[in-house]
Amino acid sequence: MSSSVQHVRLREVGPRDGFQNEPEVIATADKVRLIELLARTGLKRLEVTSFVRADVIPQLADAREVLEAIDVPEDVSLSVLIPNERGLDNALQLRDRIDEINVFLSASETHNRKNVNRSIEESLSGLERVIERAVAEELRCEGVISTSFGCPYEGEVPAERVVEIARRGAAAGAAEIALADSIGAAVPTDVVERLTAAREVIGGASLRAHFHNTRNTGLANACAAVAAGVTALDASVGGMGGCPFAPAATGNIPTEDLCYMLERMGVDTGLSVPALIEVSHWLEAQLGRGVPALLGRAGVFPPRERAA
Amino acid sequence: MSSSVQHVRLREVGPRDGFQNEPEVIATADKVRLIELLARTGLKRLEVTSFVRADVIPQLADAREVLEAIDVPEDVSLSVLIPNERGLDNALQLRDRIDEINVFLSASETHNRKNVNRSIEESLSGLERVIERAVAEELRCEGVISTSFGCPYEGEVPAERVVEIARRGAAAGAAEIALADSIGAAVPTDVVERLTAAREVIGGASLRAHFHNTRNTGLANACAAVAAGVTALDASVGGMGGCPFAPAATGNIPTEDLCYMLERMGVDTGLSVPALIEVSHWLEAQLGRGVPALLGRAGVFPPRERAA
Repeated sequence: MSSSVQHVRLREVGPRDGFQNEPEVIATADKVRLIELLARTGLKRLEVTSFVRADVIPQLADAREVLEAIDVPEDVSLSVLIPNERGLDNALQLRDRIDEINVFLSASETHNRKNVNRSIEESLSGLERVIERAVAEELRCEGVISTSFGCPYEGEVPAERVVEIARRGAAAGAAEIALADSIGAAVPTDVVERLTAAREVIGGASLRAHFHNTRNTGLANACAAVAAGVTALDASVGGMGGCPFAPAATGNIPTEDLCYMLERMGVDTGLSVPALIEVSHWLEAQLGRGVPALLGRAGVFPPRERAA
Repeated sequence: MSSSVQHVRLREVGPRDGFQNEPEVIATADKVRLIELLARTGLKRLEVTSFVRADVIPQLADAREVLEAIDVPEDVSLSVLIPNERGLDNALQLRDRIDEINVFLSASETHNRKNVNRSIEESLSGLERVIERAVAEELRCEGVISTSFGCPYEGEVPAERVVEIARRGAAAGAAEIALADSIGAAVPTDVVERLTAAREVIGGASLRAHFHNTRNTGLANACAAVAAGVTALDASVGGMGGCPFAPAATGNIPTEDLCYMLERMGVDTGLSVPALIEVSHWLEAQLGRGVPALLGRAGVFPPRERAA
């Protein structure tokens, strides 16, 4: 609030982080449709899928099919999440369909090992090579640091470790570093502290934040990130990404709720709130259940102006 | 976050604002039990009922019975919401059971008229007399300004009007002025602006904020209020207070979620988060449905330390 940020760009992760956590595999055509609908709301950055092993995450086994089918305007940047060098190989094969890749590792040893079966150092060394190769191939590459604000197994994650990983990612050539609160553990003070510290070591790379609303602090954290000068935030339409069997244990912060808050704070997002709500309602119809986002139920405020 | 606030006191409004919106009338014994359980979590301020017409709000028709039955420690302050002079008469009859009264009006003409069938000026003049009489009777009196951040009928509510009502309430002798976001329309910038402006005109009176999470901005707003130096916040255990037929269209900000965020930010609340979660679970069992609060599902973080 005290920052001078006037524009924030939201990066939609629902098609990847949301669908990845669905118990049923979503039909490829529905994924493609969602992505195309989202691209009409004003969103310019979309994380559409992930190149991961199909036996581990069957929900995203159709990554190639989705990428080949999507039809969005040229100025919409499509991103794919990539765990390792093999993922980069896959991405390079679809070079003309992909605008950026996101590589990731966890700032917690236990979480990283459970996730990708490597130590942090092994992951980091491997990803430095992936980043360098992507840069050499002129493919924009960004680095995501999972569990940047806490680990479900280890608890507290030292800020210094997060900052050091950020530094190495940027030094390897990542165009953007994202601090991710994968389990919704962050509070606003953490957010300001860690983002501010990370910024100091990443040189010319930009900074992004990724929050979950698991403990109801998601929008407060987003607000803190903006106050700390961050202009790129991940969000998921409807707040998809949580466990669907516990509807209120939400996942990512809902794109429409975040957009509404920022716009009403005078921060430009370039997005249409009513259009986002429409997509969210469409999604509810596809999933056959309500989403965690609240704006679609409460309606925008003031009641008329925006709905018009 | 940038404020120097180190202690925040939460004021529980679930027994009043929550139960008032229940479709079924809750048994008096259950209300009494909830209040007594809440008083064991460390909460020192509880709004327990309201003296309103039983034909308008039958859910609170047992105000007197509740007040007479409650057994809580001496240092717990019990408050009753009062719309007019008749409410004060009722409160004075139960003088030994009540520690403070809250009078209220709306900052929106339309909302005030629909709510109490008076103009703002009529309400304000009447309440000035109520406040003065309460002060003369040595009964602590606080003033609540509903729709301080927006009206469901009129839309925007001018900040100047809210500030002027705050000024007159404090001048009449209110010990505390509360700005209430009755419909969850506020965003953090509004919160800082209006609370800061109100503080300047209320002299020695203290300042309180009351938020609803209707559009997912409740905790962000609470955070902004604390950053603006506010040390008293209303909240409702479980986040009761919304429409029970739309579970995610939440009402008040959940006491346990707010408490968790503040404590993890290093702000002392004097409350036990696990004890609050227990009361919230008890409440869910009584209501036969889940509450909007998220902490009870996700669990505290870090996982062990706090649960111990």
